[in-house]
Amino acid sequence: MTTLTRRERRTQAQAFLAQCANQSFPNSKKVYAVGLRHGVNVGMREISLADSLIGGDNDNPQYQPNAPIRVYDTSGPYTDPNANIDVHVGLPKLRADWIKQRSDTEELPTATSGYSQQRLADDGLDHLRFENLPKVRRAKAGQNVTQMHYARQGVITPEMEYIAVRENLKRQAVKDDILNQQHAGQSFGASIPPEITPEFVREEVACGRAIIPANINHPEAEPMIIGRNFLIKVNANIGNSAVSSSIEEEVEKLVWSTKWGADTVMDLSTGRYIHETREWIIRNSPVPIGTVPIYQALEKVNGVAEDLTWEVFRDTLIEQAEQGVDYFTIHAGVLLRYVPMTAKRVTGIVSRGGSIMAKWCLSHHQENFLYTHFEDICQICKAYDVSFSLGDGLRPGSIADANDEAQFSELKTLGELTQIAWHHDVQVMIEGPGHVPMHMIKENMELQLEVCGEAPFYTLGPLTTDIAPGYDHITSGIGAANIGWYGCAMLCYVTPKEHLGLPNKEDVKEGLITYKIAAHAGDLAKGHPGAQIRDNALSKARFEFRWMDQFNLGLDPDRAREYHDETLPKESGKVAHFCSMCGPKFCSMKITQEVREYAKGLETANEESIEIKMIDTSPSAEQQQGMQQMSEKFKASGSELYHAIK
Amino acid sequence: MTTLTRRERRTQAQAFLAQCANQSFPNSKKVYAVGLRHGVNVGMREISLADSLIGGDNDNPQYQPNAPIRVYDTSGPYTDPNANIDVHVGLPKLRADWIKQRSDTEELPTATSGYSQQRLADDGLDHLRFENLPKVRRAKAGQNVTQMHYARQGVITPEMEYIAVRENLKRQAVKDDILNQQHAGQSFGASIPPEITPEFVREEVACGRAIIPANINHPEAEPMIIGRNFLIKVNANIGNSAVSSSIEEEVEKLVWSTKWGADTVMDLSTGRYIHETREWIIRNSPVPIGTVPIYQALEKVNGVAEDLTWEVFRDTLIEQAEQGVDYFTIHAGVLLRYVPMTAKRVTGIVSRGGSIMAKWCLSHHQENFLYTHFEDICQICKAYDVSFSLGDGLRPGSIADANDEAQFSELKTLGELTQIAWHHDVQVMIEGPGHVPMHMIKENMELQLEVCGEAPFYTLGPLTTDIAPGYDHITSGIGAANIGWYGCAMLCYVTPKEHLGLPNKEDVKEGLITYKIAAHAGDLAKGHPGAQIRDNALSKARFEFRWMDQFNLGLDPDRAREYHDETLPKESGKVAHFCSMCGPKFCSMKITQEVREYAKGLETANEESIEIKMIDTSPSAEQQQGMQQMSEKFKASGSELYHAIK
Repeated sequence: MTTLTRRERRTQAQAFLAQCANQSFPNSKKVYAVGLRHGVNVGMREISLADSLIGGDNDNPQYQPNAPIRVYDTSGPYTDPNANIDVHVGLPKLRADWIKQRSDTEELPTATSGYSQQRLADDGLDHLRFENLPKVRRAKAGQNVTQMHYARQGVITPEMEYIAVRENLKRQAVKDDILNQQHAGQSFGASIPPEITPEFVREEVACGRAIIPANINHPEAEPMIIGRNFLIKVNANIGNSAVSSSIEEEVEKLVWSTKWGADTVMDLSTGRYIHETREWIIRNSPVPIGTVPIYQALEKVNGVAEDLTWEVFRDTLIEQAEQGVDYFTIHAGVLLRYVPMTAKRVTGIVSRGGSIMAKWCLSHHQENFLYTHFEDICQICKAYDVSFSLGDGLRPGSIADANDEAQFSELKTLGELTQIAWHHDVQVMIEGPGHVPMHMIKENMELQLEVCGEAPFYTLGPLTTDIAPGYDHITSGIGAANIGWYGCAMLCYVTPKEHLGLPNKEDVKEGLITYKIAAHAGDLAKGHPGAQIRDNALSKARFEFRWMDQFNLGLDPDRAREYHDETLPKESGKVAHFCSMCGPKFCSMKITQEVREYAKGLETANEESIEIKMIDTSPSAEQQQGMQQMSEKFKASGSELYHAIK
Repeated sequence: MTTLTRRERRTQAQAFLAQCANQSFPNSKKVYAVGLRHGVNVGMREISLADSLIGGDNDNPQYQPNAPIRVYDTSGPYTDPNANIDVHVGLPKLRADWIKQRSDTEELPTATSGYSQQRLADDGLDHLRFENLPKVRRAKAGQNVTQMHYARQGVITPEMEYIAVRENLKRQAVKDDILNQQHAGQSFGASIPPEITPEFVREEVACGRAIIPANINHPEAEPMIIGRNFLIKVNANIGNSAVSSSIEEEVEKLVWSTKWGADTVMDLSTGRYIHETREWIIRNSPVPIGTVPIYQALEKVNGVAEDLTWEVFRDTLIEQAEQGVDYFTIHAGVLLRYVPMTAKRVTGIVSRGGSIMAKWCLSHHQENFLYTHFEDICQICKAYDVSFSLGDGLRPGSIADANDEAQFSELKTLGELTQIAWHHDVQVMIEGPGHVPMHMIKENMELQLEVCGEAPFYTLGPLTTDIAPGYDHITSGIGAANIGWYGCAMLCYVTPKEHLGLPNKEDVKEGLITYKIAAHAGDLAKGHPGAQIRDNALSKARFEFRWMDQFNLGLDPDRAREYHDETLPKESGKVAHFCSMCGPKFCSMKITQEVREYAKGLETANEESIEIKMIDTSPSAEQQQGMQQMSEKFKASGSELYHAIK
């Protein structure tokens, strides 16, 4: 792979953004399902399939149609050919009316954070700025505008209905028994209903078991939910650093991430134009955006952690809440007394936020101001509906440090903070590790559920070994699949560049697909209703040599087709009734079709009262005769190949 | 990626093979450990490390050396600069004297299989043939030359000693407490001793819990062991098909596979020159070679499964045994009565061998001749020491078909056949699936251990979802890591091309590294003694900013370095005391070094009887004073960056 210069990367990103409308997948179209209560329109991707050959002969083949398959779609308007996409304008504001109609918020004349005002006044930034900034909205005095607050009032919001429709994927419409078969799962105490109703969504949000990250200043985002009784979600991290990348590249990665299935995106930028980059990202994002506000606060004090103050941090929270950030990572569990617990570790404190706060605590020998001001942060969150993602600043950075005293002490503190947030009806999820060997993952999940009152868990991996830099999407994908199965609600992806550098576009895609696999493997293992439909449809297509359907039902149709074409490059390969592993002469799948004929023959034989005994090694004379009959019947029954499936 | 033509690929392969000697990894050298009993010389890879900076200042830094780390090495002479490598001559015959000195075998004047004689007589094949064919060796009449037979006689062979030394990796020499720390594992009934002794190897082989695939006609192979109480092993499949690739490419893939950690290689060729390809592969392979003889037998009857006979198959077994194949996949458990059980499956029979035998059974309406002639096969195996890999011909080809009646019925039959093989002192491992959702994997492992008397399990993946063609190394790597943890002894890799086409060289590497990760994650989870040393060494290097050490301790040093250089391309990046995720200004790892200073300060403070109370949110006046003291102490204690680690 050639390494591009900064300028080349930026130019490529601009070209991508200029034509990022209608990013559809092959044979896929955007369809909308309607909610009956509020009339919400929920976008889904529908994959059309070819017919199955079920009988007849070469001159007169008989076909049976296959109903299209609907899959969860995080790409928003970017895959709707009817949408007008212009990244300088931003996405349509899906939720604007819903928010307005609740009459508990008001438009502000301008952003209220000091920093926002300063940036707006700086005309040196005009060339970087997102031009079409919307008016900032905030809760009216005394109002709480969180989805949790509504849920606890018994209100089913349009967001909740949207989520119910979205999570069901209209799977009640799937009538094919082959597609509907599914193994009973093992869910470790999750309780997923056969159908997600708006009321179920409300209940889960009300009790804190699920969150809907949905800032009132991010009406472009399509509502989604994070909780162990819903589909497992995936987060992608993007963001420039002091040494790399431009705004265009970050917006490109955002759009790209939603195409490849990111349910939320975290903007972890640390460069000079964090504020402006974030505007572009939020206005163009159909998924919730998370941030780690301490990163920007640190920039504001020139990178000197001990100079951080509550006032700088508070202004940063308001700045970001008014831009529309949907969830904040807050490292409020890094308590002064936990910091020395990390001294004997192999890799100390590896979380950036955790080490910033540790340094602050040590320098001042005071308790973490995020902890002491936690209720103040809740006040801000409930005025905009920003959810907490309580950060695990003391997560292990190596296998050796997994599940140690520092990590679990912090986790217990996060559990206490969860109760405080819930007291304010502020939504909470809990961040988790990190680096953990496979057999110690379950302990993390169990302890989190116990001490955090079933608030959703949101983990980075975990990486199950340290020995593969360059492949940590895989070391961590293994851990992610396992913890998803055990009950983790959202998996933060890891790209191949983890520990080595910033991910480029291809790394983002590779990380996302790995994590979509992990999440789906987890859904299957939990027995999430309907999770197996896509597997069944793809396997049926594979078995019937519907190559294009096999590609298109996969997570990456382009790559599947490209790999296939390397071996069988001709177009005919896509309809060939043999696969590239075996070649045209012998194919195991063809033989199975003959087995079906045989099994059918057995049934017929039984009806005709011919004695068919299954044999061991020494058949009797009578059995020999029966076998001879069956053998002739089988030979007579048919043409070798392309035999019809019934 | 550009697709090469056949000719280009062949030319590249020839170029690779012309200079495939000394394939060392960076900062690595081949070292040999000696066994005391037989004087065996066991090759290992030793990775040299840089010194750790432990104190002093910029003018006078203090360093501490890091002892080199030894890792398991499958690459044989290809990474020994003193070895003479010529693929036309083949590798040195490490085991030749050991075999000869047992005096239970004899050299034959020529190969005894009819087919081998026919190929040798065909001068049209001269241009393809491996020129330096060794004499064929076979057990003397009435002798049994399997490692299991020796083990049961109480004999510790040089092979067993070699394995004991190899598995220990001289880890008793590791003295660093940081490296030696390891979490207690969860092994589900495995019993791995702290040190592997030759006697332990013998016991495990004698009772059938482990196998040493070591055909007397493959003396080039370095002894290795497959069993749940040893390191988890990985197999790579190579092999041309009717539609693709040349002999040179397959030999290239073999050498390449051993470089990237393949413990065994299966040659699954199905093309015209299977026999000749295999000669080249075996003569150049430092690892055991497995095959599926039914593939070649089918070629001999022109691809018509019903024309297969025991006689053709028997001749094929002898042909391959005399070439030096170390283990045979034999689908003897595909019984006639099980075949109809697959009729209702979504994907029927997907194993090539399984479907060949199913077709044969149906056509003749007779029991599988591999089953009826199983004892005859045992006779062949014990004359050359070929191990059984009892094939799972009815393995599931989709999530929907996992753990069904057909699959488990066959598994039970494989358990019965295991007892028969053991009766002949023939070594056995059992092949397993396939496609299985995560929560159903454990059932496979438990049932296999139960019905097969703890014979080693050897699984393909399993794939944990069907929805990601192009990424099935990952869908299956997840399953492989889990089943390895549960007790699977060897993992058959899956490449990104699975279901789509034949793997090229890069696919082979990608599959192998994924599976080395899975195997190692499994070893860590089982608590395999010493498994964590490499993780600890790498994490320590990472924490100390020893970038080159971090790369070199990883599974793929080249890729790690390449990824790092994309973000920080300058050479200085490799010694920079910050990582590319955070940039030069702020780095979480630097801060941890300050935490250590602080913790040390706390200890000193305690000694000086200053009361240090950890605080919550409301410190008392007395506490305030203590904190103030600590704060000043911390500020006074030091320079910000590059602070020494003690």
